[in-house]
Amino acid sequence: MSAPLRIALAGLGTVGTGVIRLIEENSALIARRAGRAIQITAVTARDRSKDRGVDLSAYRWVDDMGELATADDVDVVVELVGGSDGPALTLARETLSNARALVTANKAMIAHHGSELATLAEERNAALKFEAAVAGGIPVIQGLRDGAAANRIDRVYGILNGTCNFILSTMEREGLDFAEVLADAQAKGFAEADPSFDIDGIDAAHKLSILASLSFGSQIDFGGVEARGIRKLLAADIAQANALGYRIRLIGLAEIDGENGSATIFQRVQPCLVPLLHPLAHVMGATNAVVAEGNFSGRLLFQGAGAGDKPTASAVVADLVDIARKEVGPAFSMPCAELEKLPRAASAHRVGKTYLRMLVADRVGVLAEITAAMRDAGLSIESLIQTEASNDGSALIAMVTHAGAEQAINDTLAALAPSDSLLGEPMVMHILGE
Amino acid sequence: MSAPLRIALAGLGTVGTGVIRLIEENSALIARRAGRAIQITAVTARDRSKDRGVDLSAYRWVDDMGELATADDVDVVVELVGGSDGPALTLARETLSNARALVTANKAMIAHHGSELATLAEERNAALKFEAAVAGGIPVIQGLRDGAAANRIDRVYGILNGTCNFILSTMEREGLDFAEVLADAQAKGFAEADPSFDIDGIDAAHKLSILASLSFGSQIDFGGVEARGIRKLLAADIAQANALGYRIRLIGLAEIDGENGSATIFQRVQPCLVPLLHPLAHVMGATNAVVAEGNFSGRLLFQGAGAGDKPTASAVVADLVDIARKEVGPAFSMPCAELEKLPRAASAHRVGKTYLRMLVADRVGVLAEITAAMRDAGLSIESLIQTEASNDGSALIAMVTHAGAEQAINDTLAALAPSDSLLGEPMVMHILGE
Repeated sequence: MSAPLRIALAGLGTVGTGVIRLIEENSALIARRAGRAIQITAVTARDRSKDRGVDLSAYRWVDDMGELATADDVDVVVELVGGSDGPALTLARETLSNARALVTANKAMIAHHGSELATLAEERNAALKFEAAVAGGIPVIQGLRDGAAANRIDRVYGILNGTCNFILSTMEREGLDFAEVLADAQAKGFAEADPSFDIDGIDAAHKLSILASLSFGSQIDFGGVEARGIRKLLAADIAQANALGYRIRLIGLAEIDGENGSATIFQRVQPCLVPLLHPLAHVMGATNAVVAEGNFSGRLLFQGAGAGDKPTASAVVADLVDIARKEVGPAFSMPCAELEKLPRAASAHRVGKTYLRMLVADRVGVLAEITAAMRDAGLSIESLIQTEASNDGSALIAMVTHAGAEQAINDTLAALAPSDSLLGEPMVMHILGE
Repeated sequence: MSAPLRIALAGLGTVGTGVIRLIEENSALIARRAGRAIQITAVTARDRSKDRGVDLSAYRWVDDMGELATADDVDVVVELVGGSDGPALTLARETLSNARALVTANKAMIAHHGSELATLAEERNAALKFEAAVAGGIPVIQGLRDGAAANRIDRVYGILNGTCNFILSTMEREGLDFAEVLADAQAKGFAEADPSFDIDGIDAAHKLSILASLSFGSQIDFGGVEARGIRKLLAADIAQANALGYRIRLIGLAEIDGENGSATIFQRVQPCLVPLLHPLAHVMGATNAVVAEGNFSGRLLFQGAGAGDKPTASAVVADLVDIARKEVGPAFSMPCAELEKLPRAASAHRVGKTYLRMLVADRVGVLAEITAAMRDAGLSIESLIQTEASNDGSALIAMVTHAGAEQAINDTLAALAPSDSLLGEPMVMHILGE
């Protein structure tokens, strides 16, 4: 058996301690699978004295994180510090600059600086791996890079944020509005005190930009992801969607629009109505799931725990096993020079069914006003439910349109915007194709 | 870019021609991902003159298949001949003996001779890869070998035969008995003229034995798989299962029983009742799905097309990309010497809920007789439905027991066997835990 692979851990939060527990508990098995032992040599974190529930005495404590990039007894630096910039990015740059392997769970850093880091890794012939950055314990980076490698993939999408899916599942089960479920989730520690990254779709957008690059062979373009969150969802939206045969899920979707030469890339995170026949409709709680559509494989689905110390540690150590086996290729599946810079796609011409929900004044002629605006925009209605929203004189209208262009929805909303029949902003959600 | 990887195809059925189409259609993309071109140099099949709908003129035709194992212009032999023994096995042995890489979609050959071939591959330092042998286009071999590599996996199970799942889904949708759906599927070409390998669970057993070896780090033991098929299922079974909140699926399940040192391996293919909350209940048609439970990853689900020329070709070429990238390790994820020989587990002590269906004479006292036998065996009933089976004086009793040992089921059936109240053999199906 070869010499052990020596790793240093930077960051000892839940994932860092999860990695320590995994490597200790499964060490013999990992050595059999990797062909050599994986050995933690050094660790670092902000606070040395904190009790983390794991024994650190066997590992060299390092006060200066930067030291890990050059230490003699380290083959791989595992960055679990977090944050798109700052100390994490400095450590990543220094580690790769020193021709040393870097494993990270940091989706924000990869989404923002993945191209720079991959180029650096390639120049120095060092491994850069980030399985844990997307969808927790699900080996989807590898699934795209290796398992689907023979395919042209034109579409990748999925449920990429466990907190949102937990909130949506709970809203559905309990019949509660978003704000109530969020408050409860925060009280129980399932959602962050500042939940914006999760519920506004930013976290899912980080992950989507990584999946898109791997799927399409394109340069990562986080800035090109349009992100809409789930803050404005009502219990009534979930109920109406269910009545119409759908579940609401926060879906990150990336797609190639157009053919070779004139291809553009579309990337969006938004709550969608998912038909009950689609497997993503049955993904409950904090679970994540990713679908990739290959031109030969057809639809591939990868599903599992999207977060948590143990699943994320599983993904981190999978990367370490790859490095131990010397099965390491380019970070984004092909050399950086091969990654295409794709222009961002317009969305107005995108065609699909759409869910529209409006709170309106409950008076004569309102429905006529709305349907006239839709007719003028060329949009027809597949199904419509009007219910009394409350006893304050408002009504709730929820409808699903026939397939139409997004431009028609935009035109409808623009025509209705000046009207005082609408109480508050309409809710627009697209319907995921089966 | 390095020199092309030169491959030879043995067998030009639907999968072989699918591989040709894939390599032609996606050649530029594959070269970007693999770092070098993948080039077909030679092909062989039984009948040269047959029109296969692909142009073979660019490839050297070889009459004697054995020649591929030694030809100068071949780096990898792709075996798509099929059959556990005979020409496929001869070719595999000769190819690996010549220190040449072998890619195969042949589940029967790997299930029966995988250990021998892996040992040979290891001795000659040649790659042996078989992603296409299990679950068609789903990259589950790689998911277990790489993605879940950090985990102790104690349980792997799934829907491994598309024909059976297609038949079961159709029985459910149409309310038909097994025999009717099979006849229709055969007429339409979805099922083989001799469907025994599929419907008796043999094909799923081949795949299960491969998944078990990869998951557990154990020597492959196809002979240890107990296989029960779906021939005896009635439309009434599906209907009763639905009424009780379950769908019926043919499940291959392998599990480690006991701890290190005294661990044994349990492997069984059988129709099971799957709770609607379980993702496998929502796998419809010819789709396959595999669940692996890792001690850190938790439950991982891989789902996709289980068969067909294009998905299977996707898996074959994924293996070729791995070889082109030189990312090739031991066939069963660890060196053959590391694979444990696990004794086969007994099943009498296995505990779970069970579905029991009996056709009985419709007369006074029959239910008392059955429930007395269950009581004597220590088995209690969670739910029971008795319906008139037909107007011939028989009744159908379907029930789900509380969790009990398989021995109690065996005892109940043994006690009832001599009774003339039972008309025909009872149907026993286990219920998949959530």
